[in-house]
Amino acid sequence: MSSARRVTLVLGGARSGKSAFAERLVRESGLQRHYVATGQAYDSEMRERIARHRADRGDGWSTHEIPVDLTTHLQALAAAERVVLVDCLTLWVTNLMMAEADVDAAGGLLVERLSGWPGQIVLVSNEVGLGIVPDNRMAREFRDHAGRLHQRIAAVADEVYFVAAGLPLKMKG
Amino acid sequence: MSSARRVTLVLGGARSGKSAFAERLVRESGLQRHYVATGQAYDSEMRERIARHRADRGDGWSTHEIPVDLTTHLQALAAAERVVLVDCLTLWVTNLMMAEADVDAAGGLLVERLSGWPGQIVLVSNEVGLGIVPDNRMAREFRDHAGRLHQRIAAVADEVYFVAAGLPLKMKG
Amino acid sequence: MSSARRVTLVLGGARSGKSAFAERLVRESGLQRHYVATGQAYDSEMRERIARHRADRGDGWSTHEIPVDLTTHLQALAAAERVVLVDCLTLWVTNLMMAEADVDAAGGLLVERLSGWPGQIVLVSNEVGLGIVPDNRMAREFRDHAGRLHQRIAAVADEVYFVAAGLPLKMKG
Repeated sequence: MSSARRVTLVLGGARSGKSAFAERLVRESGLQRHYVATGQAYDSEMRERIARHRADRGDGWSTHEIPVDLTTHLQALAAAERVVLVDCLTLWVTNLMMAEADVDAAGGLLVERLSGWPGQIVLVSNEVGLGIVPDNRMAREFRDHAGRLHQRIAAVADEVYFVAAGLPLKMKG
Repeated sequence: MSSARRVTLVLGGARSGKSAFAERLVRESGLQRHYVATGQAYDSEMRERIARHRADRGDGWSTHEIPVDLTTHLQALAAAERVVLVDCLTLWVTNLMMAEADVDAAGGLLVERLSGWPGQIVLVSNEVGLGIVPDNRMAREFRDHAGRLHQRIAAVADEVYFVAAGLPLKMKG
Repeated sequence: MSSARRVTLVLGGARSGKSAFAERLVRESGLQRHYVATGQAYDSEMRERIARHRADRGDGWSTHEIPVDLTTHLQALAAAERVVLVDCLTLWVTNLMMAEADVDAAGGLLVERLSGWPGQIVLVSNEVGLGIVPDNRMAREFRDHAGRLHQRIAAVADEVYFVAAGLPLKMKG
């Protein structure tokens, strides 16, 4: 079963239930669970969110906090007996932008890594492009980066879901 | 037929046609129609919207304006021969926040009320979580409250639709 | 084949891959390709976007830049042996609002023109109504205009797609 669905992209809005759905996919795989958090607890609101997510997830996970250097660390986690949950790509894009990294190049390396992934990996990301054009240029760039990354990952993914109100809609697979 | 589909959640964006679609579901039920408006006409823009919605709806409805105390009033409307349209939940969440009420607790009471609903009820709500993260904390809290409420109602609903450009996409049911 | 699918609406968020998908539909038609750009290069960011889109599209297109007077120009392009790609309606709405034109009336004329379209036409537009209610009234009006236009065009379209992460979801047709 894990060989059939190696790479899954789970897209959804804020509080859409996308993380809970992704965790369900991970649990059903029966593989060793690794959780890769890209979020950084830089303020109390963020710390609360991270703690709540961790409590929701429960035991049975190895947790890795990897804000920027995602692809290198994923390389170390890639193994047939493991399932990796990355939550979430939009925070990773934010972190890359704050580090003034080349987001497109970093995205390209991630997509390369996903091709031929030996175990199973589920990547969660926020769909952020369905509102009014943001006023500030940085937000527009972020939106463009996120959208391009989603397209590139969706192109190599075996399955893509769009989650709303906790309900998954299969877009691919 | 009304017994088959008791609780329906209709999600959609601004001007997506979600209210018109919900009204169509209500008309097709053949039951006594009750319209529960959560919107308050606190300015001229809002007054115009409410008047336009009312004109679009036409006759044959009993209208109730219930900005905050939704669940108590719904209790009084619950009956096998009636269909209730609640438009919309996001305005209700706004009203609860403005009244400094406990939104999660209020949502829990509503969800409880919906279980075992005797007639038919259609709840309309705005999907607001698919844009850029809002700058202000209140808007982020609103977005989180709305998203959590949608998940909880979708979990107990018999049918969930996502409406875009006037076209319904069935997510559940 | 072109007679089967005359009018197609392609909706999607920013950087969702909606234009690339629409161009694919156009190429598959085998008809003479006409590209109608509604965007105006009023700043360097916009000029870059337009140039990038043009490069992505490649050769084999007649390009027309029509920011405001869309329906009149479409009239001149309507022919059985042609396929027209309009990219995008949301920019057209913006241009109409900046020209203080009657957006609803202009939308009505476009919808009329689309009925009985002799060749094939694909209209691309941004879904912008799925974020938080914008603070400023102009943005709210824009969102309402765009949403209403999408509903009206979807009602007469033969096919409607919602694109996310480069993946099309058929809503109608």
